[in-house]
Amino acid sequence: MSTPGNRNPQVWGEMLALGLETREAARVLRQASSETKNRALRALAAMLRRNAATILSANREDVAAAEAAGTSGAILDRLRLDDSRIEAMAKGIEDIADLPDPVGREMARWTRPNGLDIARVATPIGVIGIIYESRPNVTADAAALCLKSGNACILRGGSEAIHTNGAIHDAIAAVLGITELPGSCVEFVRSTDREIVGRMLNGLGGAIDLIIPRGGKSLVARVQEEARVPVLAHLEGICHIYVHEDADPAKARAIVRNSKMRRTGICGAAETLLIDRMILDSVGVQVLRELHEAGCEIRGDEAVCAIFQGAVPATEQDWRTEYLDAIIAVKAVDGVDDAIRHIETHGSHHTESIVTEDTRAAEKFLSALDSAIVMWNASTQFADGGEFGMGAEIGIGTGKLHARGPVGVEQLTTFKYVVRGTGQVRP
Amino acid sequence: MSTPGNRNPQVWGEMLALGLETREAARVLRQASSETKNRALRALAAMLRRNAATILSANREDVAAAEAAGTSGAILDRLRLDDSRIEAMAKGIEDIADLPDPVGREMARWTRPNGLDIARVATPIGVIGIIYESRPNVTADAAALCLKSGNACILRGGSEAIHTNGAIHDAIAAVLGITELPGSCVEFVRSTDREIVGRMLNGLGGAIDLIIPRGGKSLVARVQEEARVPVLAHLEGICHIYVHEDADPAKARAIVRNSKMRRTGICGAAETLLIDRMILDSVGVQVLRELHEAGCEIRGDEAVCAIFQGAVPATEQDWRTEYLDAIIAVKAVDGVDDAIRHIETHGSHHTESIVTEDTRAAEKFLSALDSAIVMWNASTQFADGGEFGMGAEIGIGTGKLHARGPVGVEQLTTFKYVVRGTGQVRP
Repeated sequence: MSTPGNRNPQVWGEMLALGLETREAARVLRQASSETKNRALRALAAMLRRNAATILSANREDVAAAEAAGTSGAILDRLRLDDSRIEAMAKGIEDIADLPDPVGREMARWTRPNGLDIARVATPIGVIGIIYESRPNVTADAAALCLKSGNACILRGGSEAIHTNGAIHDAIAAVLGITELPGSCVEFVRSTDREIVGRMLNGLGGAIDLIIPRGGKSLVARVQEEARVPVLAHLEGICHIYVHEDADPAKARAIVRNSKMRRTGICGAAETLLIDRMILDSVGVQVLRELHEAGCEIRGDEAVCAIFQGAVPATEQDWRTEYLDAIIAVKAVDGVDDAIRHIETHGSHHTESIVTEDTRAAEKFLSALDSAIVMWNASTQFADGGEFGMGAEIGIGTGKLHARGPVGVEQLTTFKYVVRGTGQVRP
Repeated sequence: MSTPGNRNPQVWGEMLALGLETREAARVLRQASSETKNRALRALAAMLRRNAATILSANREDVAAAEAAGTSGAILDRLRLDDSRIEAMAKGIEDIADLPDPVGREMARWTRPNGLDIARVATPIGVIGIIYESRPNVTADAAALCLKSGNACILRGGSEAIHTNGAIHDAIAAVLGITELPGSCVEFVRSTDREIVGRMLNGLGGAIDLIIPRGGKSLVARVQEEARVPVLAHLEGICHIYVHEDADPAKARAIVRNSKMRRTGICGAAETLLIDRMILDSVGVQVLRELHEAGCEIRGDEAVCAIFQGAVPATEQDWRTEYLDAIIAVKAVDGVDDAIRHIETHGSHHTESIVTEDTRAAEKFLSALDSAIVMWNASTQFADGGEFGMGAEIGIGTGKLHARGPVGVEQLTTFKYVVRGTGQVRP
């Protein structure tokens, strides 16, 4: 943490002013009508399409700089935009506009014996700080999710996407300039000074209510270590799929293959496969063969390596690794209790699925596991706000407080109690 | 924060072991039936009554030590137990047993077009660390609220109540010893080593999911500054009551007097009174006279001092002070917008009430203010879990994440998504 001694006073003053302006904007945005917010969102989608050439040109600058710095592979791919990605961003914002307004929902209402009428009503959280890495689409997605949920936001993206993010924020600023919403509803930090992240984690003198980190393990770890304001963290997804002895073989093959191989780079992809020892040489081998033929590397325990030629030995580390790649760790277990124990010991409380036709085993698995999402006979890759019918999400929460699982616009709200009386006093 | 260099290894080892045991107990408690939990709670109420003499004798030790150390007044009063306070503790636990089980509630359930059946189900949070000061009843209340909500807990009370808390925990341990619940469901830290609080705020190596501080401003500030795990904080209640120009005079007098004077030491007591300038010399004076006659000191702004003889001048500090005493700060305002502005600037987002017969003004006040509880024509002293019909509470949350307002057994739960399929894979 920074102390007054090593503060850069200019950064500090500027960030403090930014915090105050955003806090003021949040007061206005909190009470904006659904129409106002949705009009701004649709205008933003249109503006992104209209500014596509400018955004792509800024993106080429970032990509060229990244290439010159030796960046390649997945990071470069995450950074690179094209027409279809800009269209996907714009369409995503229109989808958010179509969602019901999460603010003002009456979550509960009851009357007390003394006549007091009590309602719990959804309200925006306030000012959300979003700290993210190289994906520039987060700039548009996060701004849209925050606007819809009535929250002002301060965005701090990775320095490698600074030009692209700046161009996307120019579009946002242009739209806010022609609505009745304050421009500071969506602030973007253009300086790449690393000290700024520390300032945000400190809450900018009370201006920030919540920090959402979106990025890799080391970013999330820094945020959790340093933050002095609440954090909604999206940790890794070490998702398990468990093939129970009473699994339907066809379902097992299809669900395991889809959970691992549909897209290997998402947090809902399965990373560990548990197979009941009783069926290892029957359904187990079929499942492994299917994965192997699809190009997946199999890292097995002793029992798995003994029965499946294509497997390489797993180390202890494999049970705790989020590969985000075509690799799976496979272990033989002795029934549902053993599977539960393994998951509780090695998992990250994200998403786990059991494949079985045995209702009792399934319900035990669903009830005993303390993960954000537990599934029965379904692919772990359904762990997604859109697939849940909740609309766009800012991530999958793995913490236990406030929001777990997909974090969409409803999860970006809090609530207050509204009490209506007729003169009641407390005895 | 402690570093390995200044760690007391014995404290560290013991606390780490305690954390592991509590985490293990939480796994069992999470799945305990309502019957098991309620049986334990009723047995605990009975055990407290049976052990009353032992608890009171331990309490006399603490009180004597506190008196010898020069403690007096409110702190000594909070520390002291008698038969009626023990009976109130026991009765409170029986009331908690009577509440519906908050765990396992289906909060929402829907089916997706692909046939996936998705339910959001309430689950315990896990292990809760509770750090509190001199009130020994917190030991019993917090243990009971946690047990009911399926959470294991680690209690760390103030050193001045160490014997009393120990005796109350003996009763808890005796009850857990004769149930099927593990003894570590409720752990109590008997060492008064101050380093232990630091350990707990660090999460005991991942064993603690949530910290709840219960005590004064400086305790809560330390917890918020140092904690590396989520905190459910109960900050001060700078509650406002606003008498609007269209207030009914009789309601205004009764509500203001009750909000301030019913009990001055609770967080829902009003601390600042705002009166519309237009009615300052009519209803305003009536309200002030009533307060003054009830023994309340009036600290007014210029307008208030000019019109009411009994008032003394308020300083800037008065608008931000939680007196918890028979003192009130009074300010003349120019309508509902001015009142809202004052509250947003000086309040603590706890509880605010408007007295008016004008629906539009009331709804504006209720909608614009970003406080945990907003009221219309009702005493601020209704800010209480019991008065809301939510049962016993561990406090009133003033943060925005997870839980706001009264924190009862429902607010001590989180949730998970349970997804039931028939073999679905994601396209």
